[in-house]
Amino acid sequence: MSLPATVSIREVGPRDGFQNEPETIPTDRKVELIEALARTGCERLEVTSFVRPDVIPQLADAAEVLARIDVPEDVAVSVLVPNERGLENALALLEEARGQGGRKAFDEINVFLSASETHNQKNVNRSIEQSLAGLEIVLKRACEQGLRCEGVISTAFGCPYEGHVPPERVLEIARRLHAAGAREIGFGDTTGMANPRQVGELFAKWKDGLEEVQLTAHFHNTRGQGLANVLAALQAGVQSFESSFGELGGCPVPPGATGNIATEDLVSMLHEMGIRTGIDLPALIACARRVEEILGRPLGSHTLVAGPVDWRS
Amino acid sequence: MSLPATVSIREVGPRDGFQNEPETIPTDRKVELIEALARTGCERLEVTSFVRPDVIPQLADAAEVLARIDVPEDVAVSVLVPNERGLENALALLEEARGQGGRKAFDEINVFLSASETHNQKNVNRSIEQSLAGLEIVLKRACEQGLRCEGVISTAFGCPYEGHVPPERVLEIARRLHAAGAREIGFGDTTGMANPRQVGELFAKWKDGLEEVQLTAHFHNTRGQGLANVLAALQAGVQSFESSFGELGGCPVPPGATGNIATEDLVSMLHEMGIRTGIDLPALIACARRVEEILGRPLGSHTLVAGPVDWRS
Repeated sequence: MSLPATVSIREVGPRDGFQNEPETIPTDRKVELIEALARTGCERLEVTSFVRPDVIPQLADAAEVLARIDVPEDVAVSVLVPNERGLENALALLEEARGQGGRKAFDEINVFLSASETHNQKNVNRSIEQSLAGLEIVLKRACEQGLRCEGVISTAFGCPYEGHVPPERVLEIARRLHAAGAREIGFGDTTGMANPRQVGELFAKWKDGLEEVQLTAHFHNTRGQGLANVLAALQAGVQSFESSFGELGGCPVPPGATGNIATEDLVSMLHEMGIRTGIDLPALIACARRVEEILGRPLGSHTLVAGPVDWRS
Repeated sequence: MSLPATVSIREVGPRDGFQNEPETIPTDRKVELIEALARTGCERLEVTSFVRPDVIPQLADAAEVLARIDVPEDVAVSVLVPNERGLENALALLEEARGQGGRKAFDEINVFLSASETHNQKNVNRSIEQSLAGLEIVLKRACEQGLRCEGVISTAFGCPYEGHVPPERVLEIARRLHAAGAREIGFGDTTGMANPRQVGELFAKWKDGLEEVQLTAHFHNTRGQGLANVLAALQAGVQSFESSFGELGGCPVPPGATGNIATEDLVSMLHEMGIRTGIDLPALIACARRVEEILGRPLGSHTLVAGPVDWRS
């Protein structure tokens, strides 16, 4: 079995997870959790989003979170930026932080659109072409500010409205985002429709013409195939994944279903397979236990319930 | 990705699942569910076990279930036989059914032992060698009666007490079971400790010397890796799996963890990958819904919660 020796994980729970909680998590608790996650050995951390606070009040404290968190220098902090206005707010904060001479507020921005017209229209009220035009401006400006940029393509493996999503369209969007400055492209299985055969075939195809780009897989476990899709992606040479501690978030469709794959389940599998992530699994599990306390409900990841495999010999 | 075109599944829910329910399921309901499962296109069905009724009262109605079920001729009905006494009871029933001239009560027997000394001792109160000596007698007698035999090796991928289980020991046990008459060997990941790299490497090894044997993988989803392990086994050439509808059973360790992989999740993934199973997924989901009604609680399989992928185009 041909597998990479190391994998890099972006923990997206503080953005993708906290955003999907019905009750807004207090800023103090967010800061506590982000700082704990940043000390698990995690290399990349998506901490918040510059969205409209009337649309997503759960992340209305983005500026305060970024101003307060104390994160080790070697952890890349990223923020989600949905559009031009979001970028302006993000850059204003960056400018302010620079003026104070401290660590910059964040290192990376992530932008997103859907590969399915219907999903993109419902999600951001724009056509794919309108989204791309806006994101090209966002990426250009962000690059000028020295920010590393990731472009995330949602519904890359299937759309709940349109079904099959042509890989050629996904690849074309990826090339456009890359040309506009994205150094990383994330392929999102937004409602958990991917299967391992498809994943293996698509990543083999998507590498063509994107040799210089970091390809990132963002799977959901909606139908239990999340880690099987990770395996297929690993075998296709993918070494970068996004996941969420405690199995938080992912905007599960239908409600009650599983969303994001849990970071602790992903790390558990990778470590058992001898693949390094740099993440301290017990420290990560402690973060997920703490978020259970804060939310006041048990979370559903397998590793939280069963504990990690204990090889005594 | 090298994958088989077809896969054969043995549904073990009526034995492995029903056995693990704290409340015994009424015989009428068992018969109803077995008959429904037998009409989903499922080729192989493990329906009960000849265990001591004082030890496992949930299956004390084995003889009645076998006498009553009406199952299509092309469905292979199997029963679990733990030891020599279990076989005597099973053969007595077979003799009785033959005397009545109807369909024979069952087609196959499954026997089992653990690859870990400690687990085998705790589970059946025998050493591995004692178990093998007994099972060799059981297999010989069952073969003489024209029954097809499967030997299941529990804790084949790791033991909660001993940790690592040497593959050489598993392979040696498999060879002994085969020599005694088993035409199929099941490799059980009894407490969900397998990972995909291990699975791929072991099945490549286990094929040596067992070319004429049907190799069956029985995975648990304790740590969320169940379907990833299925993928690794498929890639290693395995075409036979055991699973349980509704994600029932598997004697989860620790309590509250996931046990067996759900048949509907397995079938869903295989069909999405273009691999045939012969099983009608909606009919199978209907069986799992019915068992939810009978048990009076929701079951946790992903496909039950999220529904199957609906490719509209």
